[in-house]
This record gives sequence, structure tokens and C-alpha cells, in this order.
Amino acid sequence: MTGSRSFRLTLAYDGTEFRGWQKQPGPRTVQGELEAALGRVLGVERVPTAGAGRTDAGVHARGQVATFIHDTHLPGHAFAPLLNRELPRDVRITASAEQPEGFHARHSARARRYEYRLLATPDVLLGRYAFAPHPFPPLAALEAAVRPLVGTHDFTAFQTVGNDVANPVCEVTVARWSAREDGAAFDILADHFLYHMVRNIIGTALDAARKPDPEAHVSAVLASRDRSKRGRTAPAHALSLQRVYYEGEELV
Amino acid sequence: MTGSRSFRLTLAYDGTEFRGWQKQPGPRTVQGELEAALGRVLGVERVPTAGAGRTDAGVHARGQVATFIHDTHLPGHAFAPLLNRELPRDVRITASAEQPEGFHARHSARARRYEYRLLATPDVLLGRYAFAPHPFPPLAALEAAVRPLVGTHDFTAFQTVGNDVANPVCEVTVARWSAREDGAAFDILADHFLYHMVRNIIGTALDAARKPDPEAHVSAVLASRDRSKRGRTAPAHALSLQRVYYEGEELV
Repeated sequence: MTGSRSFRLTLAYDGTEFRGWQKQPGPRTVQGELEAALGRVLGVERVPTAGAGRTDAGVHARGQVATFIHDTHLPGHAFAPLLNRELPRDVRITASAEQPEGFHARHSARARRYEYRLLATPDVLLGRYAFAPHPFPPLAALEAAVRPLVGTHDFTAFQTVGNDVANPVCEVTVARWSAREDGAAFDILADHFLYHMVRNIIGTALDAARKPDPEAHVSAVLASRDRSKRGRTAPAHALSLQRVYYEGEELV
Repeated sequence: MTGSRSFRLTLAYDGTEFRGWQKQPGPRTVQGELEAALGRVLGVERVPTAGAGRTDAGVHARGQVATFIHDTHLPGHAFAPLLNRELPRDVRITASAEQPEGFHARHSARARRYEYRLLATPDVLLGRYAFAPHPFPPLAALEAAVRPLVGTHDFTAFQTVGNDVANPVCEVTVARWSAREDGAAFDILADHFLYHMVRNIIGTALDAARKPDPEAHVSAVLASRDRSKRGRTAPAHALSLQRVYYEGEELV
């Protein structure tokens, strides 16, 4: 008998048809599908996994990370192709590898990166993965609105009261917009995120972009720590977990 | 009682969950959903419609056109919002208007425009609407490959033998590639298209791009009128009917 080994999986998924990452009895979830597929690969009922980010219903991922422990003889790289044969088409394993003992998708994570996509005009195809606010704000106003977020701040104002009791002080390393052919993309990197934090930032930035001084508006919301001052929670379907960073990985 | 009036609808749809445009007993089709929704709006069982392009299973549309005849008192512009309340989320009416008597979505159409999207790297989200060929060819090779298509030619070599007995001589006004952030897009405008013509052009262009002279290869396939010389039929999910043109509309 071999000892227990730790494995890391990188996952991409289309969140549209999932009730989020976390397994639940009943609804279809990414973790539920993954654990069942792992069970089929390893010849057991189900293999417990840990996920780096508990993405909400409808949120997508290009770089979710999950870990599991098993005493299999299989090499780490074998899991990506084996799991992709078992998984539904809206979940793909993009990488798999063995990790040192004690590595844990969530506890070992140093930072997470999300993308939120805005669309300048509604589109039945692109609209599956992007949100088309009306009116579409000028990019310069959106850029000004997110400037106050970079740094270490108490993000209580941007947290939805819910199932999460995380430390509200987050260290945001990157918060920037870039123009895209069909709209804009918001890129945000932080050590951790509060419940609905990115979606609340987007709702607040859209509010701010309509005001004379978007930067001052967001600064005031942030400093207030008052949830009633922020904008609405933007839709889930335009959000994607792009990457999770671990020890030894550069935050680029 | 008013006389019969003709109406034109412009439709966008995500073809993923449809067995194509054309209604069939059983499978979910765009025309089937549209006729049932029209029936609910007009208080009848079902309203027969004509579509400009019979898109295949999995093919999308941003500018499909459908016509129907009814003696309703409703103004033409009322149908878009009324139908959008009745239709599933993956079909949207982007415009509706009354038309002169005799206007017919298919018979009155002068030209159709399609887009085929290629992706440079596989992506679980973008992959819903784009095809990631491996290896991804140089854009210059793709451009050379489609150059022989512009003009009036017999496209028999690019037709899949199937349900269509159209005139094989098509007048192609535009056949061009453009670079996209994540790959490339092929834009083709012609008076009419043969069965699977765009998907067969893509498969042949991908073959040609691997040869020393892509332009000569496609020229030879076209001139041969021989289906065995062309490439494979590229996947449906990367194709979208972008627009249908009628009398008085410029081909831009």
C-alpha cells in the first residue's frame, strides 16, 4: 500500500448550467460533477475535493483549482485526460499534477484573480459571458472609479451579507480596465475576496461612472464601510475566476 | 376585418440547444419556438413563418429574418417586445416591422452574410461559439486560401450532398479574414449558399493553410467541382448567420 498523495487540478468551466462550485444535495454543481468523475476514474463512489474559490451560481472559471488526496498509483498528469473523458462538456481539466503533502487548494492560495466582462451592445451570443449595461459608460470613468481600490483596505462596503465571515481587509494588487473589441474587461487580483465583492465593485463602478467625480464617489463608499452606499450587485454571468496563485508563483 | 398584413422579424439566437432553424415534429427548433410564441401573442395555436436561412443544428444567428402574414391590428414594432416576453432566453427578436405585401424572408432575400470564428487556443467559454483548430494557421495563409472564392463560381466542390438542390453557382462578394484578440473571424457574403458551404470552405481553408500554396490549392478544389478534394466540414458551433439583405439595402 502506498501512502496518501496530494493532487492539484486546474479547472475551466462554463458556470451557466451550474448552481455554483460548491457541492449540494440536489442541484448540479461543479464540485459535485468533479467528485463523481474522480470516483469513476478511481473506482470509488466519490472523492472529496477542496476548491480554491467558491464561485456562485452562474459564475465561470478559467483557472479554478481543486485538490484531493488519494493513494492511487496514477501519475499526476494522467488525471486531466482521464477526468475529461468522464466530465460533462462544460467542465474541463486544463492541468493536473501531484503536489507536496499538505498542499490545499484554498488554504495554500496566496491570491485570486477575477475578470468581469462588459459588452457595449447587447448580443445574444456574447451576452452569455458578459453584461451590457445601459448606457455604456466611458472607459475613462470606469478607470477612475476603480483607482481607489488598489491597496490594502477594509472592503466591508462591497460585501454582501451572506454565508461568508471572512476578514474584510483585502489586499488588492491589480484593479484595472482594458478596452476590448466589443466592450471592456475588468481585471482584479487580491489576496482574498469577500462574498459578491467583485460584482458589488462593478455595480458601484457603474454608478460612479455616471457621477461628476467617479474616483471620489468610490473612495467615499470604500471609506464608509456602509453597504447601503454601494451600487447593485452586477450579474454573475459576466464574472470568471481566471487564476489562483500559490507560493512561488509570481502575481502576473 | 382588416386585410392580411406581412411582418418581418429579425432574430438572434444561440443555436447550441436547437436542432437548427427549421421546425420538425419533436426536436426543439428555432422556428418551432417562434411559431408557438407568435401563436401565444396572437391568440391562435401557431402562426406559420418563413425563414431566410435554414441554419443547421448548432449554428447561431445574429441576423436571421423571418416573415409571417396575419390580419392583426398590432403595429409592426410591437412584435419585438411582445415576442421577447414569450420566447426562451436563447432566441431574441432584435427588430420587427410591417412589410409591403408579397415580401418573403427567403424569396425576397438578395444576399446572406455569415461569420465563422476561429480561436487560437481552446477556451471553455469562448469555445461555445468558436472553433480552435490545431495547429492554428497563420492568418496570411488563411487569407490566401479564401482569395479564389470571391466572384461568381460553381461551388459544387463545397456542397455537402444533402437536402438542398440549389443552383451551385454563387456570387461571393466578400470572403475575408480579420484578426481578433483571441483568434480570427471569417466574413463571407454571397447571394446564396449551398448546404454546408461555409463549413466546407473553412475545412478546406484549414487544409490549404498547411500547404505551400494555399491559394493554388483552393483554386484547384473550386475548379474541380469535386467534393472529394475539399477539406472536412468544420464544426457548426462556430458559424453564425450575421445578416440577410433585401432590395434597397446596401451590401456593407
